[in-house]
Amino acid sequence: MIIALKPGVNIEEVKKLTADLENLGVKIDASQGSSQIVLGLVGDTTVINDDALRANHLIERVIRVQEPYKRANRIFHPLDTVLEFPGAKIGGSSFTLIAGPCSVESRDQLVAVAEAVKKSGAAFLRGGAFKPRTSPYSFQGMGCEGIDLLVEAKKATGLPVVTELMEISQLELFEDIDMIQVGARNMQNFNLLKELGRSRKPILLKRGMASTMTELLMAAEYVMAGGNSQIVLCERGIRGFDNFTRNILDLSIVPALKKKTHLPVIVDPSHATGLSWMVPAMSKAAVAAGADGIIVEVHNDPEHALCDGEQSLTPGQFDSLMGVLRKYAEIEGKAI
Amino acid sequence: MIIALKPGVNIEEVKKLTADLENLGVKIDASQGSSQIVLGLVGDTTVINDDALRANHLIERVIRVQEPYKRANRIFHPLDTVLEFPGAKIGGSSFTLIAGPCSVESRDQLVAVAEAVKKSGAAFLRGGAFKPRTSPYSFQGMGCEGIDLLVEAKKATGLPVVTELMEISQLELFEDIDMIQVGARNMQNFNLLKELGRSRKPILLKRGMASTMTELLMAAEYVMAGGNSQIVLCERGIRGFDNFTRNILDLSIVPALKKKTHLPVIVDPSHATGLSWMVPAMSKAAVAAGADGIIVEVHNDPEHALCDGEQSLTPGQFDSLMGVLRKYAEIEGKAI
Amino acid sequence: MIIALKPGVNIEEVKKLTADLENLGVKIDASQGSSQIVLGLVGDTTVINDDALRANHLIERVIRVQEPYKRANRIFHPLDTVLEFPGAKIGGSSFTLIAGPCSVESRDQLVAVAEAVKKSGAAFLRGGAFKPRTSPYSFQGMGCEGIDLLVEAKKATGLPVVTELMEISQLELFEDIDMIQVGARNMQNFNLLKELGRSRKPILLKRGMASTMTELLMAAEYVMAGGNSQIVLCERGIRGFDNFTRNILDLSIVPALKKKTHLPVIVDPSHATGLSWMVPAMSKAAVAAGADGIIVEVHNDPEHALCDGEQSLTPGQFDSLMGVLRKYAEIEGKAI
Amino acid sequence: MIIALKPGVNIEEVKKLTADLENLGVKIDASQGSSQIVLGLVGDTTVINDDALRANHLIERVIRVQEPYKRANRIFHPLDTVLEFPGAKIGGSSFTLIAGPCSVESRDQLVAVAEAVKKSGAAFLRGGAFKPRTSPYSFQGMGCEGIDLLVEAKKATGLPVVTELMEISQLELFEDIDMIQVGARNMQNFNLLKELGRSRKPILLKRGMASTMTELLMAAEYVMAGGNSQIVLCERGIRGFDNFTRNILDLSIVPALKKKTHLPVIVDPSHATGLSWMVPAMSKAAVAAGADGIIVEVHNDPEHALCDGEQSLTPGQFDSLMGVLRKYAEIEGKAI
Repeated sequence: MIIALKPGVNIEEVKKLTADLENLGVKIDASQGSSQIVLGLVGDTTVINDDALRANHLIERVIRVQEPYKRANRIFHPLDTVLEFPGAKIGGSSFTLIAGPCSVESRDQLVAVAEAVKKSGAAFLRGGAFKPRTSPYSFQGMGCEGIDLLVEAKKATGLPVVTELMEISQLELFEDIDMIQVGARNMQNFNLLKELGRSRKPILLKRGMASTMTELLMAAEYVMAGGNSQIVLCERGIRGFDNFTRNILDLSIVPALKKKTHLPVIVDPSHATGLSWMVPAMSKAAVAAGADGIIVEVHNDPEHALCDGEQSLTPGQFDSLMGVLRKYAEIEGKAI
Repeated sequence: MIIALKPGVNIEEVKKLTADLENLGVKIDASQGSSQIVLGLVGDTTVINDDALRANHLIERVIRVQEPYKRANRIFHPLDTVLEFPGAKIGGSSFTLIAGPCSVESRDQLVAVAEAVKKSGAAFLRGGAFKPRTSPYSFQGMGCEGIDLLVEAKKATGLPVVTELMEISQLELFEDIDMIQVGARNMQNFNLLKELGRSRKPILLKRGMASTMTELLMAAEYVMAGGNSQIVLCERGIRGFDNFTRNILDLSIVPALKKKTHLPVIVDPSHATGLSWMVPAMSKAAVAAGADGIIVEVHNDPEHALCDGEQSLTPGQFDSLMGVLRKYAEIEGKAI
Repeated sequence: MIIALKPGVNIEEVKKLTADLENLGVKIDASQGSSQIVLGLVGDTTVINDDALRANHLIERVIRVQEPYKRANRIFHPLDTVLEFPGAKIGGSSFTLIAGPCSVESRDQLVAVAEAVKKSGAAFLRGGAFKPRTSPYSFQGMGCEGIDLLVEAKKATGLPVVTELMEISQLELFEDIDMIQVGARNMQNFNLLKELGRSRKPILLKRGMASTMTELLMAAEYVMAGGNSQIVLCERGIRGFDNFTRNILDLSIVPALKKKTHLPVIVDPSHATGLSWMVPAMSKAAVAAGADGIIVEVHNDPEHALCDGEQSLTPGQFDSLMGVLRKYAEIEGKAI
Repeated sequence: MIIALKPGVNIEEVKKLTADLENLGVKIDASQGSSQIVLGLVGDTTVINDDALRANHLIERVIRVQEPYKRANRIFHPLDTVLEFPGAKIGGSSFTLIAGPCSVESRDQLVAVAEAVKKSGAAFLRGGAFKPRTSPYSFQGMGCEGIDLLVEAKKATGLPVVTELMEISQLELFEDIDMIQVGARNMQNFNLLKELGRSRKPILLKRGMASTMTELLMAAEYVMAGGNSQIVLCERGIRGFDNFTRNILDLSIVPALKKKTHLPVIVDPSHATGLSWMVPAMSKAAVAAGADGIIVEVHNDPEHALCDGEQSLTPGQFDSLMGVLRKYAEIEGKAI
């Protein structure tokens, strides 16, 4: 951490500031330039309160050189984290397909889709039971019954399942769920993140609509600070100024995250684009950008889907896509 | 709602689509153009699932003419909603000052600030007990003890108090709190909104960092759908591409909201700018733009604040600001 | 300028880097931390090529403490720049009203509007002769004939005139124009800016749709580097993710610019919002935020305007607005 | 085009409006709903002035169903446009590599890079002679001499060359240049676009930093309206709220553009990311997303590049990248 002081500050006051900072356990290298003093802070600066420093009348600028996250930081954990599930892995040399309907609608629908995507090569079944909807008047998901149907589909097909949790009190319902999704709107629901840190369930953490890369990693850090490091990060599109797609898929965060963190990174081309005809192009681009997998919506009858029909592939479209993705993954040295 | 069909669609299929829509209780006016058919839907279209329509192979575009919110809509409730508190109002012909520290830090701090802002003319005390912080290693607030101190400060000064709730389970602690704040990061925490709809406490609902005006109003609609219409909306800055301020204060949403909804609208210049020297200019601009009040951070010792010191006014700066705001409010015909 | 080197760099290479930098005329203070070396550069660092430094394999981060602009920087020119025109000033203790139609359409229209806005208190007439339109099929302005009509209206009313120049070759037509507008789309048309630096005409420089504050000031610096320091900066709305207004009026740039530069700052509420009913609220907010003036569209018949009718005030609406703005300006100690 | 009238409008006024619109050559289908009248406009609505309609007191909303561009629209020109150059094509079944330094610095540098990239498989040489730089104090390019060196490098290697034109008056210098680049900052420099419409040179049109897809296509339409349809569109990153990359590469515009227009679409991963280590991942993703080529910066000595060294590949890195891109292009059925 580097602190640039204002020109002409009082030396006694600087000594006091320096002593205060040293009391926090960091070492200070002071450099007297011709116009201003620059302090270099060495040690664990994650304990330092930037806000208070910025309010200090002696200080012109506070610049962090080190990242504020530790457990999620690849510097301290150089090896890729790989999550293991029954018959599936996420991270390392795998490319993992997670597929299924936007929302669980019925036993028949779910099992039909699960069997189809499994046959095509998906390693995970997705499906929403609790749905975050912009309108209180839209279908809100089947709730507990949806969770039951997911567990049944898991038993029927052997596919591990992932579904979204919207509130801490739902946690007990998720015992047989293999991975808990934290949605984009809850990425900074810090109480939820802390609670999930106490859980030992793998977490699929979606990037918020306007979250920076650092904020996403700090959200993961919340979970990891509680002792749970089974986290998969997911880029799902950010808010932009154009509306030809629902969101802007920010694929450049994939290589950036792979450099900064050891956690696996997957991509959601369905929510990012909102348009099923764009999903194949963006899925292939995700492999090419270095992602560890994709999560994609597949529905047996998109025109009658209770939500997000416009962005759902049919099982046939998904099967065609899988054929091409295998070729891309092979070039990248990843196994599907 | 207007639905433009694709050119050259099959008439039998169109008849079936029309019948399906009429079964939902809306009336259809079909207009046969030279190149395509346009359907006008009349009636309560909030029950219609746009997503499914957009996935329909007959349909090119779906356009909503009416807003998707009802209870929050000024068309159906032309008169301003005014919230009443002991010694304070929000909405109508009042301009309401809500002031206090970012976080509750101690009894002495809180009472000192509360007395100072009351003397200057604030009608409400604010202060965070549960703090949403980007880093798990930052000060997370005093929690329950902070709530107790707020209630004490309320007794000592007579000022009603507002503080942020981060999770449903905290609700029982808020019995003596006058208004519950929903933070920007929780604006689309729909389970929380539904629960608050069942409460009868006034809600201060902050706009999410990348939320549209319609999304903000739909969040209010979630609370109102539960029966609680005591809501104050708050613009607190949106995410932008520049970093000279923490966020971009979007003041044009103030007159837009005043036109679209009957709910009061206030502005938070402290979080929007993140810089105390900008707070006076933006506070005055908020009055001028037609806001019903502001919520502003005041700290007796910003350089040692446990959070957000850089954006806090001192009591003296707040008092000076109040002097100017009274003049502005007078021009706008509002009483402070 | 501060340069943080990577940990463990070769000392001989660092010496060579330091010598290279000193050859550019800056002095180096090296600070050896326990993990990395930090170089502080003292002197005129505007000659340093940041890009090349960032590509250097020894260097982890390059941080500018000083602003990259000099002539536009208030540090080097503490006093407000005030531009003087016949019967009008911009900057200092004036609040200046610039009003007129989006585009010049006819002699009658222009003179009628000019007389009306003058009577209400406008100090400048605006009107587009060369119009930047998104579509090649839209009305492109009256061109040279429009310039002639502006000069006639100036003679008829005594109001100085401002109009947009879109291309260097048009410059000779602008001899009798009092202030040349550079539109948002041309803010980084650097050849145009250099040419205007050689001119001695006052320049109204509009902020680009997605330009940072620093980029705006660097655009002004281009003109000033050529010797022309008669520049007025204009905030006119930036691109955002919502579409309830055409752009987002970023009023917080007003106090920020007033702190960073000595140049006058005005606001364009018409283009920012695109909606005439929002113009009064945003005009008042501009005064409150500390602007030196506003530029506002007024049309005698908005429903038949050849462009931007939706955002134009009628002369009557403008006159009402002026009444309120005088009160606001008085509070701010500014004369209209 | 669909026009929703306000509820309760005067029928005589509606008749007059309808007649006015019909005089513009469009046919009107009026549909009387229970609450409001909806007008459907049939015919060539590109002549209609949306702005004036939106200002009309009878009208609530104006909705365009058809796109505002014609010559660039794939509906009217279903077949891919393919540009032919000596030894190179852009569009159709080709994947075209355009490579070279950010700026032309010397004969030796340019020829060395040109020979290297040709050997690796590049089909075009790029290099800046006139450079748009944010700061007037940065290297502005070699100008005319740079153009001469590009032409020499073209003769030496046989590679066609592309370079940026910043101003109409430079056009005569570009006689031996094969393709003229319009930079992001000039995408809406309409006078320049019109002049290029009169030229018969192929144009490489870069998307502006905050331009929508429609605005990009309207910029192409400006050139095409003048008779020049030899245009290549280029996605080069848009402005975002995070700064881990210089811009956000919006790859989803690639399949969207391929659907909307017949013009070729390429991607610039160098300017989009600003970081050379990200260029390979984003180049591969561009092929996967369906692009017709990429334009990438290659420099023989990035650490001493006069601009953008941080984002330049070395010839060796470019050669490695080419090996992988060939495999990707093969999957997509494209020849390099």
